[in-house]
Amino acid sequence: MRLPLHLRSLRLVLYAYVPYAYVPYEADEIPVTIYFTHMNLKLQIDSARLEQHLIELAQIGARTDGGVCRLAFSDADLEGRAYVEDVLSEAGLEIRIDPVGNLFAILRGTSTLPAIMIGSHTDTVATGGRYDGALGVLAAVECALRIKESGWVPNRSIVVASFVNEEGVRFMPDMMGSLYHSGQISLDAVAAATDLNGVSIGQELTRLQGYAGTETLEDIDVGYFLELHIEQGPVLEDEDLDIGVVTGVQGLSWTEVTVHGASNHAGTTPMERRRDAGLVSGELMSNLRQLPNEIEGLRLTIGSVTYHPNLINVIASKVQFTVDIRHPDSARLQDAEARVKRLLTEQSVCQITCKSLARVEPCTFSEQVVSAVQNASDTSGYSSKQMISGAGHDAQILNSKFRSGMIFIPSRGGISHNIEEYSSLKQVVAGANVLLGAVQHLTEK
Amino acid sequence: MRLPLHLRSLRLVLYAYVPYAYVPYEADEIPVTIYFTHMNLKLQIDSARLEQHLIELAQIGARTDGGVCRLAFSDADLEGRAYVEDVLSEAGLEIRIDPVGNLFAILRGTSTLPAIMIGSHTDTVATGGRYDGALGVLAAVECALRIKESGWVPNRSIVVASFVNEEGVRFMPDMMGSLYHSGQISLDAVAAATDLNGVSIGQELTRLQGYAGTETLEDIDVGYFLELHIEQGPVLEDEDLDIGVVTGVQGLSWTEVTVHGASNHAGTTPMERRRDAGLVSGELMSNLRQLPNEIEGLRLTIGSVTYHPNLINVIASKVQFTVDIRHPDSARLQDAEARVKRLLTEQSVCQITCKSLARVEPCTFSEQVVSAVQNASDTSGYSSKQMISGAGHDAQILNSKFRSGMIFIPSRGGISHNIEEYSSLKQVVAGANVLLGAVQHLTEK
Repeated sequence: MRLPLHLRSLRLVLYAYVPYAYVPYEADEIPVTIYFTHMNLKLQIDSARLEQHLIELAQIGARTDGGVCRLAFSDADLEGRAYVEDVLSEAGLEIRIDPVGNLFAILRGTSTLPAIMIGSHTDTVATGGRYDGALGVLAAVECALRIKESGWVPNRSIVVASFVNEEGVRFMPDMMGSLYHSGQISLDAVAAATDLNGVSIGQELTRLQGYAGTETLEDIDVGYFLELHIEQGPVLEDEDLDIGVVTGVQGLSWTEVTVHGASNHAGTTPMERRRDAGLVSGELMSNLRQLPNEIEGLRLTIGSVTYHPNLINVIASKVQFTVDIRHPDSARLQDAEARVKRLLTEQSVCQITCKSLARVEPCTFSEQVVSAVQNASDTSGYSSKQMISGAGHDAQILNSKFRSGMIFIPSRGGISHNIEEYSSLKQVVAGANVLLGAVQHLTEK
Repeated sequence: MRLPLHLRSLRLVLYAYVPYAYVPYEADEIPVTIYFTHMNLKLQIDSARLEQHLIELAQIGARTDGGVCRLAFSDADLEGRAYVEDVLSEAGLEIRIDPVGNLFAILRGTSTLPAIMIGSHTDTVATGGRYDGALGVLAAVECALRIKESGWVPNRSIVVASFVNEEGVRFMPDMMGSLYHSGQISLDAVAAATDLNGVSIGQELTRLQGYAGTETLEDIDVGYFLELHIEQGPVLEDEDLDIGVVTGVQGLSWTEVTVHGASNHAGTTPMERRRDAGLVSGELMSNLRQLPNEIEGLRLTIGSVTYHPNLINVIASKVQFTVDIRHPDSARLQDAEARVKRLLTEQSVCQITCKSLARVEPCTFSEQVVSAVQNASDTSGYSSKQMISGAGHDAQILNSKFRSGMIFIPSRGGISHNIEEYSSLKQVVAGANVLLGAVQHLTEK
């Protein structure tokens, strides 16, 4: 089969643009499929369009301070999803909305080989930025659009996905949409989840006309999931790298500790007579904060501390604090948890109660996907490093069902979940191109 | 002058009742004034009436949980003061209400020797008990009533006082009424003080019909002030003592410390890259809490700690905490303040800002008043110890103007500013009798 003329000229353009491209066949002898594959490795996303989409999505739920607020199951959240849906629908992709509101758009491939899913989420925290989640969805949209308009029909179907309630700000648990999609949470459990005002997701799904659909993706055999995301940490920026090839997500263990003391007058109670929950919790926190010095790679954060009654001249009757520990290695995470427990029992002045708030096992991504990302980055000439994700993502949930992986780009100052969240267009484009390249690599498998 | 018959028989009764009483004169030769003094040392308060008054006052502003809430410049506060005023007025004392609402009731003496003021306050904290303040006022009322009905007219006038806003819960500063009475705060400053909702005392004084009066005590030369109070600490109960002869009030210094860090993601930010206001404030607090081991007699309390944004998975961007230090010795208090300041500058990870919230110099009570209290306690056969007050009181403010002193009785469990505040009737009666005895001692001076 001969190539149509316009594709032959495109090929020449590509040769001119990327002179070192590996093309093993003579022009007119190249089999069409092989030719397409290699051609597509040269496919670049449309940076102006991606930028425009990022700007437009950020206007939905825009805060006056420049940030974005699209809390899951809010009007702005639905509007954000509808925006993405419109773009995909206009491009001719097949749209499906599932019963919890997850959005899927299918670009059919030439075979029934397991499909490649790409995407992220469009919900944000209350004081969110323009990139967390939105970038992963819009880059996936851009890949689909670029593939579609290039005329290339991959052998595997491509599914663009946007999962609901990744942030878990108003309704727990976080990563809810991917949990539902991978069968780890039921529709009933989703509908029953309530916010602090007692409003349930079920009620919101009824209120938000069109948020929940009735479709599934059961007829599509998905084999891979790939998510582009901002790093949300400072490592790539610090080391001046373009791409983080994410090999896994560290495990996490959250504990809420309550120290029960006795409230007394700060002026009249002799020091030796006190059962000061402030003093005791302070000692415990000091000891806990030593753990990262003892266990390499451990991240420990005490981010929430609440004193009762929290008055200047009253000895604290109760202090509640949280311990967030994370480690990429399962055994070391367990070791850290055991040491936390031990430290909390090593005093007798106050009664201590503990409550586990969350626990996520470390996740190791598919070698095949990691290698596709690494190759795509290398082929494009980007600098990169293999790294562990410090934050949780839909990809780690979907990893139980699909061969998954992630691509990181630098976050300025390591800042995220914040109106100041920022990655440059150049960084964004690099990430999106690696996503597109990795998809192309995976179509070859 | 011969004694009237009924007083002569009373003397015989007293002899019979207190056989070991020291009476240096032969019966009919006793000069009347001396005789009266000794007679009055045997005067005992009416415990049933005092108990009844305590019960009745506690019903005003009663909380459903058994506590009392009579916040200064509230309806309940005015009602409480009116109750005391009625009792004093019915007993025939001369009532005066000053422009901030301080209540005075005068029992005229036989001479123009400086008068003896006795009293406390009837306002409470929001979750207050039945004794803090109320006991001091009602015991003073009881002394006046007992003296009045005994027929004894002391050589010095007795002034029962109830000062407004000792607690300073809604409107700062605390001990406002005694500050005003001793010329340390102006009427304008009192009227301008506002609560968290922006309501001023001036507005409340207009709203609360009859709260503010127009009278002063300027024509009365007051020489002494004496206040009975619950200890609000555990010392007397621990040592099983009846009476605390208070020799002074420890000084106090309050500082608010703000640690400025950087908010970041708990999962993605490497430990060495953090500017964790939680970690830094924790170290500072640990160091500060060592100070009582270095400076004998120092009481240090960190009772209020507030994290921002106070989320489990976000590194704290800001932590505010308060440091309350107290010492009876001025030089040592200053030393402690200097060490606090030094410790707060000994790190460079986070910026630290400090704000002094309050400072009160240690106060030493009048030797004459202390000795009157000690004598009254000893004469009545009560066990006692001389001690420093850990809490602030009107007496320490008035000490700048009058020769002042205080009497403490035990507080169960050292608990105060709490609905569980409790002293037994026996303890209350002991304190009131010592107050009456001390007043009698002072009339002899």
